[in-house]
Amino acid sequence: MSGAGEPEVRLLGSWASPFVLRVMVALRLKVVEYEMQQETLGNKSELLLRSNPVHKKIPVLLHNGKPISESLIIVQYIDEIWASTPAILPSDPYRRAVERFWGEYIGDKFSQVIRVLRGSVPGDKDKMAGEMFTALQYLEEAFVSCSQGKQYFGGDSISYLDIAAGSHLAWIKAVEKISGIKLLDEARFPNLFAWADRFCAHPAVVDVMPDPDKLVEFTVKHAAMCAPK
Amino acid sequence: MSGAGEPEVRLLGSWASPFVLRVMVALRLKVVEYEMQQETLGNKSELLLRSNPVHKKIPVLLHNGKPISESLIIVQYIDEIWASTPAILPSDPYRRAVERFWGEYIGDKFSQVIRVLRGSVPGDKDKMAGEMFTALQYLEEAFVSCSQGKQYFGGDSISYLDIAAGSHLAWIKAVEKISGIKLLDEARFPNLFAWADRFCAHPAVVDVMPDPDKLVEFTVKHAAMCAPK
Repeated sequence: MSGAGEPEVRLLGSWASPFVLRVMVALRLKVVEYEMQQETLGNKSELLLRSNPVHKKIPVLLHNGKPISESLIIVQYIDEIWASTPAILPSDPYRRAVERFWGEYIGDKFSQVIRVLRGSVPGDKDKMAGEMFTALQYLEEAFVSCSQGKQYFGGDSISYLDIAAGSHLAWIKAVEKISGIKLLDEARFPNLFAWADRFCAHPAVVDVMPDPDKLVEFTVKHAAMCAPK
Repeated sequence: MSGAGEPEVRLLGSWASPFVLRVMVALRLKVVEYEMQQETLGNKSELLLRSNPVHKKIPVLLHNGKPISESLIIVQYIDEIWASTPAILPSDPYRRAVERFWGEYIGDKFSQVIRVLRGSVPGDKDKMAGEMFTALQYLEEAFVSCSQGKQYFGGDSISYLDIAAGSHLAWIKAVEKISGIKLLDEARFPNLFAWADRFCAHPAVVDVMPDPDKLVEFTVKHAAMCAPK
């Protein structure tokens, strides 16, 4: 039970973070009410620092005051605590392992590429785009294998890998605009391209998926703030 | 069912890898028979390259011919497939999240520190030792909280976090010898020090935990092989 005035589920996050988006989508899939506490870069709340002293990073989910960190660990926690349908992880252990494998790989690779292409860390942009194409090709093949001709990685419903990969879609569109490099190309990755549209339009996603133009603005503003005076 | 001559469970690994050790300990806890295929650095088998084309890394578990990669994903798969007692993940979702969090953090941090202290990647050894002390202090506190006065992170039996952290113990002892820096100090980390002895002596661990002196030899031999001619 929560104390007076304390919401049962509070999410420390930011509208622009793909990792926070994963948690929001999982909570919405499970129809769990939550209160969002927006954190801002360079001014982290005392609650965030206390709740995730190791990484000091969002997202943190506070459930009855108990903190859980790391987006994919939070998604699994949500799936296990609110174990009503729809399930997020597949029931078959092999499919769970496959989704966990691709979720980890794609999360690491996408965010590495996005950081370089938006200019927040230095790196060879063409090399990064090449790595992104390799990752998207793997994911295209994984989609064909996992979806079995249905709408999502999870078949008829959104699953763990849909969330892990789909959470980066707005940022992929934003860095396409920033870099002028088309990454998720319809001709090259036809299944993934169609899946991306479906994922972004899903009722659990549509209201929380950021607008890519706002992410471009956010990037420009942040670059100006960090520029040497 | 396996084909003729094909073992049901085959592990592609190496005696010196802490990540492979995690899988061996999990299989032994579950009393699952397996066949080990030793892989050697610089001469990866065609089966390994085909089974883990993304990372081309050990460990890979082949179960009835189906490959699973990434050590902690394999440990979870083993726990889910051979769901008989003892369970590796705790049953409580919050405890699962806590063990997953520390398992990920400790695995990354320990292997980063070990790579620098054994000299396989460049880095500031004193800085790395400092980061190791921070990580061990976190783990000391997590042990007190998780074990509740019992023998292991999992209480009376070995759990996920015991495996994730304990798999690095032989390498920690080896790099203490190589670097001359005492890391897992009894006075500083008394609970963890005592746990380490118990973990290494556990029936599922004792026969597969490498001898630290052999890891020192392995490091010296490997450094000589890689030295410029």
